[in-house]
Amino acid sequence: MRTLDLLKKKRDGEELSPAEIGFLIRGICAGEIPDYQIAAFLMAVFFRGMSAAELAALTEEMRRSGSVLDLSDIPGRKVDKHSTGGVGDKTSLVLAPAVAAAGLTVPMISGRGLAHTGGTLDKLESIPGFQVRLAPEQLKAALRRVRAVLVGQDDNLVPADRKLYALRDVTATVDSRPLMAASIMSKKLAEDIDGLVLDVKTGSGAFARSEEDAEALARDMVGIGKAFGKKVVAVISDMSQPLGEYAGNALEVIECLEVLKGRGPEDLIHLCESLAAYCFLLGDAVEYLQDGRELFHRTIASGAALNSVREIIRIQGGNTAVVEDYALLPQARRRTEIAAAADGFVDAIDVEKMGWAINILGAGRETVESGIDHSVGLQVHKKIADQVQSGEALCTLYYNDQDRCARARQMIVESYSFSRTRPPRPALIRKIVT
Amino acid sequence: MRTLDLLKKKRDGEELSPAEIGFLIRGICAGEIPDYQIAAFLMAVFFRGMSAAELAALTEEMRRSGSVLDLSDIPGRKVDKHSTGGVGDKTSLVLAPAVAAAGLTVPMISGRGLAHTGGTLDKLESIPGFQVRLAPEQLKAALRRVRAVLVGQDDNLVPADRKLYALRDVTATVDSRPLMAASIMSKKLAEDIDGLVLDVKTGSGAFARSEEDAEALARDMVGIGKAFGKKVVAVISDMSQPLGEYAGNALEVIECLEVLKGRGPEDLIHLCESLAAYCFLLGDAVEYLQDGRELFHRTIASGAALNSVREIIRIQGGNTAVVEDYALLPQARRRTEIAAAADGFVDAIDVEKMGWAINILGAGRETVESGIDHSVGLQVHKKIADQVQSGEALCTLYYNDQDRCARARQMIVESYSFSRTRPPRPALIRKIVT
Repeated sequence: MRTLDLLKKKRDGEELSPAEIGFLIRGICAGEIPDYQIAAFLMAVFFRGMSAAELAALTEEMRRSGSVLDLSDIPGRKVDKHSTGGVGDKTSLVLAPAVAAAGLTVPMISGRGLAHTGGTLDKLESIPGFQVRLAPEQLKAALRRVRAVLVGQDDNLVPADRKLYALRDVTATVDSRPLMAASIMSKKLAEDIDGLVLDVKTGSGAFARSEEDAEALARDMVGIGKAFGKKVVAVISDMSQPLGEYAGNALEVIECLEVLKGRGPEDLIHLCESLAAYCFLLGDAVEYLQDGRELFHRTIASGAALNSVREIIRIQGGNTAVVEDYALLPQARRRTEIAAAADGFVDAIDVEKMGWAINILGAGRETVESGIDHSVGLQVHKKIADQVQSGEALCTLYYNDQDRCARARQMIVESYSFSRTRPPRPALIRKIVT
Repeated sequence: MRTLDLLKKKRDGEELSPAEIGFLIRGICAGEIPDYQIAAFLMAVFFRGMSAAELAALTEEMRRSGSVLDLSDIPGRKVDKHSTGGVGDKTSLVLAPAVAAAGLTVPMISGRGLAHTGGTLDKLESIPGFQVRLAPEQLKAALRRVRAVLVGQDDNLVPADRKLYALRDVTATVDSRPLMAASIMSKKLAEDIDGLVLDVKTGSGAFARSEEDAEALARDMVGIGKAFGKKVVAVISDMSQPLGEYAGNALEVIECLEVLKGRGPEDLIHLCESLAAYCFLLGDAVEYLQDGRELFHRTIASGAALNSVREIIRIQGGNTAVVEDYALLPQARRRTEIAAAADGFVDAIDVEKMGWAINILGAGRETVESGIDHSVGLQVHKKIADQVQSGEALCTLYYNDQDRCARARQMIVESYSFSRTRPPRPALIRKIVT
């Protein structure tokens, strides 16, 4: 087998066999295939796509490129949720404790902020002492004790993905649908879970701008899950505006704690309820979706979910006092409002631009090595279809640096567009793909 | 400007500006753009193609990536011919002396065998002593004396092409039409010529299998020539069977000398006549194409072309005695015939397979470093539409190694297909693109 022949085959739209995909992934991991050939392959996949059989083979080869979590000695059903990412997309911090509170096990392996989107690990690290790196044995011990962990990816988990992602990042192939699907699913399938709920975002702040793209990505991932005999459901949800009110690391932690206390914004609660209900369904905790929705609210109302988040924070080394005292979280020194310039209705929000603005405040990394400012962020007062009057606040910026604030303000002003008549409110949940 | 942004732009089908293409080519030559990004760019170009403006900019940036020949102090019109390559495609060795004999200057920079095709330089090196490497000053002195040279590419000429070609070769992007067009034209335009005749091959032995592909490639190259204010004509010619009777280095030299002596096969003479006529037209040696055809035949009939080839061989250090005594050329020790297995008509020839068979005999390189056997090759007795009887010879193999002969024989047998009724003879010249 020669890499060049496989490249030609893919380039010409022919299907690669599992053996051929195995040859490529093993060659990539062993450093036997030069980066320029991998890059050409990635770009050919960008244009040609991948068949269901190719996707399953690619995911399997990536999954077994490193060590795989073995949770067979942990009792009970294991489920997880994965989101394709967005702005204010903070459901993990609600779901993990709520689903664990209902008796399921949630080995949630999360990521960092990517491009204009936030990352669960970055948010968690605003809690003083919180450790996102647990060795496999620590992780299993934690799962036995508190049934949920929120951790980063072990270096030995799916090394093929790290290698491929690094190259995708510099060759303009990050947004190749099959490569995205295989990347996500190889990591999730390495977690040894029984069920997976995917939150596939669509809209101006999502990698999949159109609902069609989001649905296609969802179908690819659900198809991979099926090929592996796993229960997978994808919820296609709105990212044409930020989720909830807050974006920024500590600010989002607070908003999640509010939800766990039975408060918080309606859209966030509604999405968490749906995602949790599917988790319960896939984990056999309920028989019907509606029962799952009610179970979610019971874990909140009883205080079980809030108790669970305290246990997770404690077992991962964090200061549990933050649950009661938000002042223990990093706080920005200054805040300022962005006011509407005229009367009208919010017509659209460029959420990607808004996300980059939040990064500029310091909430995201400028380079892979840079640190982040957990305290800064944004509170959104006006969302799509809201009426605004000239001078009324659209957003509040939480910031520490005046120059960054000025740059972010300009971008946020530009991210809003207005109309004279009220547009429809975007539906939060667009479609379910099973 | 960032390479990644340009990659995205090309990937998404947007047009790159001349400044952006300049940034890429200069970055590639300076080693500032890593190979994996170049590879991804090449694959994106494979899928997206290039606009006329992009092609002109790419060609210009490649052309000026190194030193450019300056022939301004050589009097007279300078013309050249370039072929996209095939099997038995030997017109350069006839054209250069014939066109020079009519008073035009021909600074012909030629190549080596590539894949299944032969190369002019390899053929010339079967002449004892013949030097294909001339320093720029030697080249100009030779042109002043004998008006034609047949030389290899100077290392300083179009280094961007060498870099790009090396990567195309290992990333399955050799047969990208715009990359082919820019590669050929950047080298030809670096020759400082007034007119260029392109012989674009089509058929089973050509890189452009279909006439449509050949025509598109021809149009790309003629368009580039126009953008540079050069007279360019493309002749689309048949490569669904070998050109002439012989393929193999010394064997092709002999066949060309035969044409220069007023003998040789009809198809080769006809193609040389047409290509020469266009050279004369572009070089203002004649006013009408028909006059060019007659002029070609006069240079042969008068012995001027034969005299010119002697001068070229002499000035490039070769033994001119080969012109009269073919036994001074390398000769294969053995020959064998391949006989038809049944009665019928030759319906088609897989010329690519036939070309690889000739390479296996030793006429081509197995790796970039390997040497070649100038003596071996093939004489074709039966071409498309010829009637054959069982046992009649299709070809004669000239060989030195029994094992190689057996492998080549098998491939040549497979390259022929037969029919019961006589198919039409393929037209030698398909189209002229101006």
